[in-house]
Amino acid sequence: MLIVMDTNAGAEAVARVCREIEAMGLKSHPIPGSIRTAIGITGNKARVDADRILAQAGVKEIIHVTKPFKLVSREFFPDDTVVDVDGVKIGGPEIIVMAGPCAVESREQCMTIAEQVVKSGARLMRGGAYKPRTSPYSFQGLGEDGLKILAEVREQFGLKIVTEAVDTEVLPLVVDYADMVQIGARNMQNFSLLRAAGRQPKPVLLKRGMSATLEEFLMAAEYIMAEGNSSVVLCERGVRTFADHTRNTLDLSAVPFVKRTSHLPIIVDPSHGTGKREKVLPLSRAAIAAGADGLIIEVHYDPANALSDGIQSITPPSFADLMKEVRAIAGVLGRTCA
Amino acid sequence: MLIVMDTNAGAEAVARVCREIEAMGLKSHPIPGSIRTAIGITGNKARVDADRILAQAGVKEIIHVTKPFKLVSREFFPDDTVVDVDGVKIGGPEIIVMAGPCAVESREQCMTIAEQVVKSGARLMRGGAYKPRTSPYSFQGLGEDGLKILAEVREQFGLKIVTEAVDTEVLPLVVDYADMVQIGARNMQNFSLLRAAGRQPKPVLLKRGMSATLEEFLMAAEYIMAEGNSSVVLCERGVRTFADHTRNTLDLSAVPFVKRTSHLPIIVDPSHGTGKREKVLPLSRAAIAAGADGLIIEVHYDPANALSDGIQSITPPSFADLMKEVRAIAGVLGRTCA
Amino acid sequence: MLIVMDTNAGAEAVARVCREIEAMGLKSHPIPGSIRTAIGITGNKARVDADRILAQAGVKEIIHVTKPFKLVSREFFPDDTVVDVDGVKIGGPEIIVMAGPCAVESREQCMTIAEQVVKSGARLMRGGAYKPRTSPYSFQGLGEDGLKILAEVREQFGLKIVTEAVDTEVLPLVVDYADMVQIGARNMQNFSLLRAAGRQPKPVLLKRGMSATLEEFLMAAEYIMAEGNSSVVLCERGVRTFADHTRNTLDLSAVPFVKRTSHLPIIVDPSHGTGKREKVLPLSRAAIAAGADGLIIEVHYDPANALSDGIQSITPPSFADLMKEVRAIAGVLGRTCA
Amino acid sequence: MLIVMDTNAGAEAVARVCREIEAMGLKSHPIPGSIRTAIGITGNKARVDADRILAQAGVKEIIHVTKPFKLVSREFFPDDTVVDVDGVKIGGPEIIVMAGPCAVESREQCMTIAEQVVKSGARLMRGGAYKPRTSPYSFQGLGEDGLKILAEVREQFGLKIVTEAVDTEVLPLVVDYADMVQIGARNMQNFSLLRAAGRQPKPVLLKRGMSATLEEFLMAAEYIMAEGNSSVVLCERGVRTFADHTRNTLDLSAVPFVKRTSHLPIIVDPSHGTGKREKVLPLSRAAIAAGADGLIIEVHYDPANALSDGIQSITPPSFADLMKEVRAIAGVLGRTCA
Repeated sequence: MLIVMDTNAGAEAVARVCREIEAMGLKSHPIPGSIRTAIGITGNKARVDADRILAQAGVKEIIHVTKPFKLVSREFFPDDTVVDVDGVKIGGPEIIVMAGPCAVESREQCMTIAEQVVKSGARLMRGGAYKPRTSPYSFQGLGEDGLKILAEVREQFGLKIVTEAVDTEVLPLVVDYADMVQIGARNMQNFSLLRAAGRQPKPVLLKRGMSATLEEFLMAAEYIMAEGNSSVVLCERGVRTFADHTRNTLDLSAVPFVKRTSHLPIIVDPSHGTGKREKVLPLSRAAIAAGADGLIIEVHYDPANALSDGIQSITPPSFADLMKEVRAIAGVLGRTCA
Repeated sequence: MLIVMDTNAGAEAVARVCREIEAMGLKSHPIPGSIRTAIGITGNKARVDADRILAQAGVKEIIHVTKPFKLVSREFFPDDTVVDVDGVKIGGPEIIVMAGPCAVESREQCMTIAEQVVKSGARLMRGGAYKPRTSPYSFQGLGEDGLKILAEVREQFGLKIVTEAVDTEVLPLVVDYADMVQIGARNMQNFSLLRAAGRQPKPVLLKRGMSATLEEFLMAAEYIMAEGNSSVVLCERGVRTFADHTRNTLDLSAVPFVKRTSHLPIIVDPSHGTGKREKVLPLSRAAIAAGADGLIIEVHYDPANALSDGIQSITPPSFADLMKEVRAIAGVLGRTCA
Repeated sequence: MLIVMDTNAGAEAVARVCREIEAMGLKSHPIPGSIRTAIGITGNKARVDADRILAQAGVKEIIHVTKPFKLVSREFFPDDTVVDVDGVKIGGPEIIVMAGPCAVESREQCMTIAEQVVKSGARLMRGGAYKPRTSPYSFQGLGEDGLKILAEVREQFGLKIVTEAVDTEVLPLVVDYADMVQIGARNMQNFSLLRAAGRQPKPVLLKRGMSATLEEFLMAAEYIMAEGNSSVVLCERGVRTFADHTRNTLDLSAVPFVKRTSHLPIIVDPSHGTGKREKVLPLSRAAIAAGADGLIIEVHYDPANALSDGIQSITPPSFADLMKEVRAIAGVLGRTCA
Repeated sequence: MLIVMDTNAGAEAVARVCREIEAMGLKSHPIPGSIRTAIGITGNKARVDADRILAQAGVKEIIHVTKPFKLVSREFFPDDTVVDVDGVKIGGPEIIVMAGPCAVESREQCMTIAEQVVKSGARLMRGGAYKPRTSPYSFQGLGEDGLKILAEVREQFGLKIVTEAVDTEVLPLVVDYADMVQIGARNMQNFSLLRAAGRQPKPVLLKRGMSATLEEFLMAAEYIMAEGNSSVVLCERGVRTFADHTRNTLDLSAVPFVKRTSHLPIIVDPSHGTGKREKVLPLSRAAIAAGADGLIIEVHYDPANALSDGIQSITPPSFADLMKEVRAIAGVLGRTCA
């Protein structure tokens, strides 16, 4: 349920309505808009007594939200959410590109890649310190040492850091070092991790599960938001189908669907989305043309010897070309790109 | 197997080699390139006696093609094929857009839509005179009357006509009236129809089957080409997956895959590919950005009352907007669009 | 729409109602049941004038069928249909097993296999004289020579013959030689072929398309029945999914779904359904346990040298074991098996 | 890598070889078989120095395991593993059936259901105290109160308890109360939870992920076993496909695949596997016929008012019928069922 306040209702009126909601045993979520404030209500099992709320000063109307998702819904919050990653704004006019290796392998590797991607216009550095691997015998990441290397990259190149928290145990450490916490595709319905991500202060990059419907995807974001963290960026990374010419089938129709249904930003991962180096450039262009707010790209100077996912990594010079083309496409849509 | 001729080998030398191949009980497919001619060989069950061919004058080398497809393979024929639909060239620098209603419903309907889409830059008119319908009780199309209406559209507006041949029985009639014969997704592995389409002179628009791998898709084109018709344009139109926010999942990675593996042009159908009107514009932009050679779009001035597929048709004004944006994206890739 | 006649309404009353229906421009389908006759109506675009029909002598009631399928619907025709293949009854208490090679390769091959499978209890011989192949360069079958061999098998061993008609051109020939006409998975939505199969007198074995929903599957059967042929046996043969441990994913839940929704018999093809020899036995048992009316099994005495699909063929001794286990499972369900 | 010991090699020889392996920085996994002991080796990044091991007394031979999975592989451990759930043996000749409500709703609900399912032959009681739900606003389970109710059920009816641990936080509590810990489909690649499940003493029921290949499924079991817990029972519960007549597509071919590739037991969940009450009985029969070692079935006396998944629950009388039919099918395969 959503309460729409009068345009001239002040902070005090909003606070009063929130207290009233909490007194009814519910949770209130004030959502300040450009023109007026709305207040979301969650926690209601049955229908809420609307009269009691309508009676409050400053309340204009009450909208019953019919979609299964509430906080993520555009019906609930019509304006685009812009997620602020320590000054880098995702969901605004600027296309934001995140780049870096699949896994943090060494200080030298990260520094080399960072130096090159920052020159081409990347705003965030990606790189896994903890890697979810199908086999228990595969390289599982450098752990905290990897996080320290990423922090050094930020120090030296000004790139913001996005890296994956693979479980609730490592989440606090990732929150300490990173600017943005990634929840991986395999964890999209790890509800405990989603809730924990909702109770920490850093923005979250939430990847779509391998066989998640978009409703399930948005409901996963709802788990994070219901805990109080509304800085969520969604990421389409391909789904599992019978098609065997790519590792996953990149579902770009997710971009306009999410934009229409939700106010949250959405970016695209063409590296995992295709699993093939030579498809990263055309599908990066396509993602931006479809309306995505950004990209996350695997870059490695020596893909053949990368410890993981070399086959889908592009080289720094290819990344520079990609950024040029992405910038041109962004221009067509009236957007910019660093 | 592929025979590469010397750059200075004349038509006579090519003809002699072809006769030699035929004498061995095989089929020869001369492929004139910009620099030299190549000759494809099909029909070989076992390995061909290469020495006998290498001994011919004008033969430079022999390439053993390892892919299961031959004639459609870029390995076989490295230059881009440009398909000429009575003067409209698909696969060259110009992005070609085909537009029109799902089904031909009446003369007035077609004339109205044609007048509007031609103004916006469409080069071909689409419209089904024969409709493959899941239910035997649904509208099955106007048949030959529909073809006559399409011919009138060409007469009056200069649009070339592409329309579906649903079986071998109606194929000759479709060939008579249309400029390009469409083979629908449900018929992608109707091998008799593919062979018949390969034995008639009009270019073919071949749609990807609902659950076809790209190898199967290219093999379907191979069926057409093996009969002697090399004017084949492929069309990605979405595949069937678990995802339920669109009617099909548009697989844009098919575009760079086909471009790399084959020399044939590929266009995209975002109307069937998404089944939702509001996703046609963003995915049209994305298709062109991914490298597609064209689009096929359902347009209807009264989608709510269309006899079929109204929900995925856009209106003529929306189509005009779409063309503007497609033109801009085409420009970024160094291509044009009428 | 369905008209239910009084239990004591005679043939004359039924005929009179049918004439009345035809006079209204509709098609009537008398369905004699064990207790009473029902009459299906198809061809109605709008709602039929029920009063006019209810006024006829012998009419008990009128049921408006709401499902998209009519003739195939159990709502329309509540009793199980038993399809009679020249004396072999599919859909009754006896489990019917069809067996034979993927493709007819030679007279000797077919005679050898037939002799062995008939001993183990097979009632029909399968074997393709026309093979739909992904590649135009693969073995396409022996054609009419293959049909003649199959006819000889019937002559000598009393096995009924089921073989595929790949297109409308070969259908008449297949109808001449075979006892049951197979429509393959790739042709499940080849509506011209379905209609033609509905206009010939032999029973039809209709295989589920590789990515067909069960509604589409039943609608394909509806195409055949709407032309007047109600001897249709459905066949689940696996669908295409991401799973890669089998060639297709055998969807045994289709069996109880079809049994509940339709009155038509359904058999299972575990050979194509798994594509792996060692899974044919366990999934044959499972199919019968799920309620299937029969099986169609690929058997070859020399799978390694079969011209097609050797990897999914079992040997005659394995087939003999399979029949023993199938018979035992059939017994549990109160059914028999030769 | 797998070391096969001589048939007469005693416990001391085995211990000596294990010490040698550990001294090389590797992990040893002694696997006592009926005739001889084998010792698995994990933790090797590169090829292990086989000579050093072959030189040990009692070592017969060394097998290099080529599959990506080791401990779960039948190549590694040829005998069937029988998992002992406090006296109930899964993977032996007896078919084991687990039954109970989707979620523990109340003491009365559980007692009522338990009383009825134990009479029909269930050996374990299922029931979620913690429920992974797509929406944060759905019923999330009774938590520890639910576990206490389950413990009471065991006390009173002698049923062993299997219940889900949704995260590492609740795992210790679940281990305290339950006899078998379930890892749900959404957590199949929650590697932290898998590892934690491998470090506790109770047997684990591991459900296949919604879009997991069987290789990924077995690798998830490998995570558990690599931590030292080899009491793992696999559970096929349907995968996500385009098919819409069931909630998931039950992939019964997984049963013979797992039986061939691994030594671990596998059971089937036809309740989640179909999501439709009326398909639970036929697919239970089919699962046992395919070779499954057991079933897990949702039973509720009032499905219409169940707090979750009522539509796929069967009533206690239907469960009694199911057990009778399962028993009969088990008999055909030379197995028993309580």
